[in-house]
Amino acid sequence: MIQPLAVSLGDPAGVGPELIAEAWARREAERLLPFLVAGGAGVLREAAARRGIDLPVERIADPFDAAGVFARALPVLPAAADASYDPGKPGEDGAHLALASLELAATLVVERHALGLVTGPIAKAGLAAIGFAFPGQTEYVAEASRVPADDAVMMLAGPQLRTVPMTVHCPLAEVPARLSIPLIHRRVTIVARALERDFGIATPRIAICGLNPHAGESGRMGREEIEIIAPAIAALRADGIDATGPHPADTLFAPHKRGTYDVAVAMYHDQALVPLKALDFDQGVNVTLGLPIVRTSPDHGTAFDIAGKGIASPGAMIAAIRMAGEMAARRAQA
Amino acid sequence: MIQPLAVSLGDPAGVGPELIAEAWARREAERLLPFLVAGGAGVLREAAARRGIDLPVERIADPFDAAGVFARALPVLPAAADASYDPGKPGEDGAHLALASLELAATLVVERHALGLVTGPIAKAGLAAIGFAFPGQTEYVAEASRVPADDAVMMLAGPQLRTVPMTVHCPLAEVPARLSIPLIHRRVTIVARALERDFGIATPRIAICGLNPHAGESGRMGREEIEIIAPAIAALRADGIDATGPHPADTLFAPHKRGTYDVAVAMYHDQALVPLKALDFDQGVNVTLGLPIVRTSPDHGTAFDIAGKGIASPGAMIAAIRMAGEMAARRAQA
Repeated sequence: MIQPLAVSLGDPAGVGPELIAEAWARREAERLLPFLVAGGAGVLREAAARRGIDLPVERIADPFDAAGVFARALPVLPAAADASYDPGKPGEDGAHLALASLELAATLVVERHALGLVTGPIAKAGLAAIGFAFPGQTEYVAEASRVPADDAVMMLAGPQLRTVPMTVHCPLAEVPARLSIPLIHRRVTIVARALERDFGIATPRIAICGLNPHAGESGRMGREEIEIIAPAIAALRADGIDATGPHPADTLFAPHKRGTYDVAVAMYHDQALVPLKALDFDQGVNVTLGLPIVRTSPDHGTAFDIAGKGIASPGAMIAAIRMAGEMAARRAQA
Repeated sequence: MIQPLAVSLGDPAGVGPELIAEAWARREAERLLPFLVAGGAGVLREAAARRGIDLPVERIADPFDAAGVFARALPVLPAAADASYDPGKPGEDGAHLALASLELAATLVVERHALGLVTGPIAKAGLAAIGFAFPGQTEYVAEASRVPADDAVMMLAGPQLRTVPMTVHCPLAEVPARLSIPLIHRRVTIVARALERDFGIATPRIAICGLNPHAGESGRMGREEIEIIAPAIAALRADGIDATGPHPADTLFAPHKRGTYDVAVAMYHDQALVPLKALDFDQGVNVTLGLPIVRTSPDHGTAFDIAGKGIASPGAMIAAIRMAGEMAARRAQA
């Protein structure tokens, strides 16, 4: 019996449901492992129809039935909430369904009824309005799998680039004070171990960006490279991790540099996400490293403005499902 | 009689001389306007020979002779210093030659003996060591053309993208405090006028980045968007400038967004240069907007590590020479 992946719906008014339907429709061509969706059977059916996809949906009562169903229909395990399909118009019912779907899918994976978790895009404001107390799904998943939020490390992965930001959702002005030798040491260590375990890279080459222009130019434009980043790199290297830098960020993402590392570690959100989305927009996957479970997500939002119009690209959703399957397979073999 | 462009040599130990030689060798295929080089005849000859380029060099005494010479030889107007060719090994003589070349080329353009200035890459530390008191060539050129340094605005331009950083060579920690409504208003106005005048874009579409992740998410991650950037955009729009934003930087450089603007205005160095170099590394041109003269430069440094090895790409140097010619032609027609 093959365990499935568990996919959460995301906000039903966003592009999540139609992209999940599209991924199922392309399951053979894309060689996707069986997955189930947590809740939203009616929403999935309507979203598929609106997109012109012939989507048989089959409600299942046990996740172990998903693999058998997957070839003929999209298996859906009912969640504790439901909502109507109203693309582009998020509402409270939809937020409740998105949350119930996330909770169910995460629980299935944490309790080992599913191999890995793929989360559809949610609207943070909508979830916050119904009492969801986490900054985002990553923090929720960390708590659900009993890992400190600081040890759940976001990696963005596309065909051309993998990047990890050391700080994520904080004002730019707070970034310098948040950086520290222990933070970089701990998080890059998690990255190194995850690339070995989950991505099959024996000795990951980790290129670490400077914070300042030109990586500070020997202290002429900022001292964080000298006082924080370089010592963290020295400590990582002493541990046997192939970390290099601090590299000037502006040239590190140039084509001839991208082949010299397996992951680029950035100091803040845009330093990591700008190059990833410039190069790999439609295929970027958000992977949470450092968890006992496998968790991926398409690297885009709800895209309410184009939901239901049949134009949202399924590339990132398909890549997220495929990557979760590959990571789970590597863990199973280990 | 056609006026030439004036090209400064850059550091003779860097890739400048060999790329100038390569540009001359490709002058017909690349349809480059005639240019002269300020000084460094011997260095150019040796750099060309090392690269396997047959480069006739002809010393001229008057810039007006350049256009007539250009078809058969590279015209060089002697500068007030000279140095031997020792690629990869910068020295004091080389710094003196680089400075003399810059001074001569800038003077030719400021005094209207040449149509535009293309500066080769220098080593800032080497120039500082011999008393050059400017942070970079841009500031020098601003002073030489009697413009306040703050009004000389750096734009990076490649085939896929144009970007302008509002702050440039300062520590990241200082960026938030340097931003102000007048700074953004003044500098974006310069950008708008320059795109009209020098690039022939009737009503430039100017997309302005936020400073914080997701452009601050309505103040949840920083307030600079609300307090500084949005009011500056409102003031620009009141002036009739087609400025939009603040846009989340991470998605603004994605392929489907890049066609929606003529230039992206970033808040700091890496926000502008990371996407430009990721997408257009070998062809990026650094253009100084807001000057009475035309000035461009290849968007790369001296690359001492590969100088003299015949592997440096001439794309950016050729693009810088071509762009200077196009800008000068538009000004001449105006």
